[in-house]
Amino acid sequence: MKIAIDAMGGDYAPREIVRGAWEACRETGQQIIMVGDRKNLENELNQLGKTCAGLEIVHADEVITMDEAPVVAVRRKKNSSLVMAAELVRDGYASAFVSAGSTGATMAAALLRLGRIPGIARPAVAGVLPTERGVTILLDVGANVDCKPRHLVQFAIMGSLYAHRILGIENPRVGLLNVGEESTKGNELTQETYPLLQEAPVHFYGNVEGRDIFKGTVDVVVCDGFVGNVVLKTGEGLADVLMSMIGQAMRQSILAKAGAALTLPALKSLGKKINYSEYGGAPLLGINGVAIVCHGSSKSLAIKNAIYRARESVENGLISAISDSLNNTVHKVGFADGN
Amino acid sequence: MKIAIDAMGGDYAPREIVRGAWEACRETGQQIIMVGDRKNLENELNQLGKTCAGLEIVHADEVITMDEAPVVAVRRKKNSSLVMAAELVRDGYASAFVSAGSTGATMAAALLRLGRIPGIARPAVAGVLPTERGVTILLDVGANVDCKPRHLVQFAIMGSLYAHRILGIENPRVGLLNVGEESTKGNELTQETYPLLQEAPVHFYGNVEGRDIFKGTVDVVVCDGFVGNVVLKTGEGLADVLMSMIGQAMRQSILAKAGAALTLPALKSLGKKINYSEYGGAPLLGINGVAIVCHGSSKSLAIKNAIYRARESVENGLISAISDSLNNTVHKVGFADGN
Repeated sequence: MKIAIDAMGGDYAPREIVRGAWEACRETGQQIIMVGDRKNLENELNQLGKTCAGLEIVHADEVITMDEAPVVAVRRKKNSSLVMAAELVRDGYASAFVSAGSTGATMAAALLRLGRIPGIARPAVAGVLPTERGVTILLDVGANVDCKPRHLVQFAIMGSLYAHRILGIENPRVGLLNVGEESTKGNELTQETYPLLQEAPVHFYGNVEGRDIFKGTVDVVVCDGFVGNVVLKTGEGLADVLMSMIGQAMRQSILAKAGAALTLPALKSLGKKINYSEYGGAPLLGINGVAIVCHGSSKSLAIKNAIYRARESVENGLISAISDSLNNTVHKVGFADGN
Repeated sequence: MKIAIDAMGGDYAPREIVRGAWEACRETGQQIIMVGDRKNLENELNQLGKTCAGLEIVHADEVITMDEAPVVAVRRKKNSSLVMAAELVRDGYASAFVSAGSTGATMAAALLRLGRIPGIARPAVAGVLPTERGVTILLDVGANVDCKPRHLVQFAIMGSLYAHRILGIENPRVGLLNVGEESTKGNELTQETYPLLQEAPVHFYGNVEGRDIFKGTVDVVVCDGFVGNVVLKTGEGLADVLMSMIGQAMRQSILAKAGAALTLPALKSLGKKINYSEYGGAPLLGINGVAIVCHGSSKSLAIKNAIYRARESVENGLISAISDSLNNTVHKVGFADGN
């Protein structure tokens, strides 16, 4: 099985992308097609010393940047590394693709080149968040800013299947993100979604609140893409601010400095626990093919882990599992129109 | 000036409420009417030793609990400490009221007893969040789960006036919470709100993202009450989880333990900085009177600070400032119908 990677997408592309692919290849023999400027990529590979036989390069002479309008960019830049990586999957040369470029453009490339799983109205970006107890899947985190109740039901089904098949969670609990626990709470969207989730083929836990997300109260948290995006970025921002405040606090006095030196290994292991990179990117669920988007600031570790998640998604039949589950429930919750 | 306080509302009522009122009275001579079970409150006061002449008690023999439906509870429990505290303001015996009880019930009591400022469609709960640079006002954080663009414009005006008059921020910057910085980003609500905010009598900074909230990029962040509530609780939950993880990490080894002991004073001062109690509760903006709701877990410090914020709101003419500002802009953004 080959995995295609957009070697030009991300804040640290192509260096860290190439390195991540190289590490995955060296570690497990994974075959990877790196798509991007051949000269540039060969140069990066040469700097890594030993080669890895599973790595190949497909040349692409365009790059989609972060500030381009996603759909327009995908339509115009047909020779971009991102679009070509998606096409390698479409044409059967690769089984999955990974990008650390623009989330919007990655979703657009996936939609336009691979399409949706039949029956899926709206593919979602599923964030994998570190919590006190492990990880929680939060979806959608940005693809769909205005949602209808049936979209959230599909997110619940897809998130649940990802948690089960890829993260190995038995009977994952699914929570509906809301402003209170009672079933009557919420805005129009969540009030209408609640009874649909009670009927859906998932282990519906009920409403959860913001404070439950990072506690890990449930395995999957469902919300519209506006709320999910705000939550994801609020969490990132707050974690950054708290860590920087702790750093400042520890530099305040000589004693604190000495203490900080002693606690450093413990804090580093904590840092590792809450590091998004460990969990390897956000799957685009509902796409008719395996696609994973990584954080723009991904370094080689995140890229390597995303490649592994992509491989597991293929090996564990994620796409057909979602497709089968939808076919079994399509009449129940009325997805047949695909909207 | 007298401030009424619902002495029976909150997880630590009446003990911590009475103590907070007593501290405010002792510290600044503030006159406070504590509303609640007389015997109970007298008992708490006696345990504090020295009395304070500015404290009085108004007896109330009912209490509204956290799990009651707000409007129903306010309508039925006319002799509750919360409703009677609001009525003391309505009838001119007090200039403001404070409660650490249910936010929904406090808003309902304020709405039903004091009403809205003429022209205000939807009063909002304004969260005051600690950030890297100071504080940020986030509104609405829960009263209005489904909002229209003109509601968000009113939130912006009210939040801006609060930041200026009570927090002393000159020309406060107002951001619209969104999924991206560009003016075209967002869901239907934010896309329609953006041009209205450009016309509104506030210093509109533009869109801000989740990560800007705790960074303190702007002074006031505007969003609907669903998103605001989720953000507020996500922030609280994540801060708790991170602090508990840090604690665990520091107990992992003898060296880390020794280090932790040395860094404790620095961490405590950080804890104080990010402690909601220091900022004294969330004002209910748009109510025709000063009302402040405190976190349910408020201890005496939070209560005391909320009393001070209430006093400052009265002294600085917050209500008439909001009213004047609306009268000047009512035609511009079409609030005249009050909806």
